Amino acid sequence: VLWVNGICQDYIPVTDRGLQYGDGLFETLEIWQGHPLFWQAHLSRLLEGCSRLHIQDVSIDILTAEVKLACANVENFDSRCVLKLIITRGSGGRGYRQPDTVQPTRIISLHPYPYYSADYQTEGIIARFCQTRLGLNSTLAGIKHLNRLEQVMARTEWDGTNIQEGLMLDSNGHVVEGTMSNVFYIQQGVVYTPDISQAGVAGIIRGIVIALAQAQGIPLIIKQLVSKEILLAADEVFVTNSIIGIWPVRQLEHRIYGIGPLTRQLQGMLNQHKQEELLQGRQP
Amino acid sequence: VLWVNGICQDYIPVTDRGLQYGDGLFETLEIWQGHPLFWQAHLSRLLEGCSRLHIQDVSIDILTAEVKLACANVENFDSRCVLKLIITRGSGGRGYRQPDTVQPTRIISLHPYPYYSADYQTEGIIARFCQTRLGLNSTLAGIKHLNRLEQVMARTEWDGTNIQEGLMLDSNGHVVEGTMSNVFYIQQGVVYTPDISQAGVAGIIRGIVIALAQAQGIPLIIKQLVSKEILLAADEVFVTNSIIGIWPVRQLEHRIYGIGPLTRQLQGMLNQHKQEELLQGRQP
Repeated sequence: VLWVNGICQDYIPVTDRGLQYGDGLFETLEIWQGHPLFWQAHLSRLLEGCSRLHIQDVSIDILTAEVKLACANVENFDSRCVLKLIITRGSGGRGYRQPDTVQPTRIISLHPYPYYSADYQTEGIIARFCQTRLGLNSTLAGIKHLNRLEQVMARTEWDGTNIQEGLMLDSNGHVVEGTMSNVFYIQQGVVYTPDISQAGVAGIIRGIVIALAQAQGIPLIIKQLVSKEILLAADEVFVTNSIIGIWPVRQLEHRIYGIGPLTRQLQGMLNQHKQEELLQGRQP
Repeated sequence: VLWVNGICQDYIPVTDRGLQYGDGLFETLEIWQGHPLFWQAHLSRLLEGCSRLHIQDVSIDILTAEVKLACANVENFDSRCVLKLIITRGSGGRGYRQPDTVQPTRIISLHPYPYYSADYQTEGIIARFCQTRLGLNSTLAGIKHLNRLEQVMARTEWDGTNIQEGLMLDSNGHVVEGTMSNVFYIQQGVVYTPDISQAGVAGIIRGIVIALAQAQGIPLIIKQLVSKEILLAADEVFVTNSIIGIWPVRQLEHRIYGIGPLTRQLQGMLNQHKQEELLQGRQP
């Protein structure tokens, strides 16, 4: 199911700058019982991205209405699915310079909820370090833009179902995030997550975990220059994204981790937060 | 004028990974009297890019035939135009992992030759340094991939017609290239161009200028760690790409340059090389 600028349509013009230059942004949301989870947070990151990329004239009202309309389409036939929302700078001539008049393109697509074993939540996953590095760029760091070749290349490094996620280092060799997730680690009761001011995506669940920890008085530090060794020496490691929630890491390369109490506590808090958000969202 | 996989068509599926992730490559060629200039060099870089990105099953024969067919369309109505060729990893599901079966998408578009004042070739251009940096990534450096947000953002930094090109630094502050061109500088009779093994595009004209200089015994050095100061202290500076050829830089920030003898010599050599290539290409 696909909509382009509100019209049911499965194609875009070749001239769209999303194709020509990756000139745009996207959001991936979980739709739960017809409700777009954490929509305000996703919308807020998307608008921050538009502001950073100087993409103007994106209407909050139209976006919200279209996402809700898309959700209404799934409420009855599936309890959970995935909504992907893309905003591009629209069509423009050849050349990097943006056209004088920009008409952004909105694309909404619905996808089945991906099959992941329930064990990943309860028993944890196996992760690896990727060879493909993340370039440092403060102009693009944090936002969820369409230039995702680094992630695509990192994801080509392994195949099969033995490994569930790859962790990526920046060009200086510091851990930033997973190919499709953010990463956290716990050392002596303190929760850490890598700084993403130079590379990486400010994940919505990452933001929620940080806020939940702070609200509960769990010490949490945004850490610069996280080495592989720090991660391998941690007590607990987990990864997060909007679709998987929190996946504990039970193995990273040759290191085996127990699934510790703080990871379990944060999983519980996140699940409760989702329930509350769902109840709130369903209120008129 | 547009072809998608050989069919006259101006749209692509929303599911194309070129749109979803910038998962692809492109080439921009000058078409001169119906002949795609330096096609072998463009094709070679494109195939190198496909190899680096693990995009398989791109047929040289089909690409060459389609480009020639496109050129046949313009021979009679314009002496010069621009051909843009895009290859993407084709359509695939949600997620960075490439699908098990990849069917690359080929897109060919024809564009009018852009209007540039003839003075840019003869009198030189005015350039500036951009604030937007290039991230370092050896996996993606050199190839002409579709992740071009850094160039798009750099190009938003100025407007109007006073400045013709912006030079970009990498995340460590070293000069790499222009937003749409490669850069060369000359100091005491030696030609230098920045190393592009960590960031930047291996421009076709860059490669030709290097080869021409070497063939003529003009000393040329691929230089790492080029600072702004080195460029500002150079005797001559010029930028290159497939559409502009060689543009001397007559002003960079507040520094004024004369258009020196080596720049003029290389311009002459490039023009002669184009003529020879045109004659050769028209032979049966």
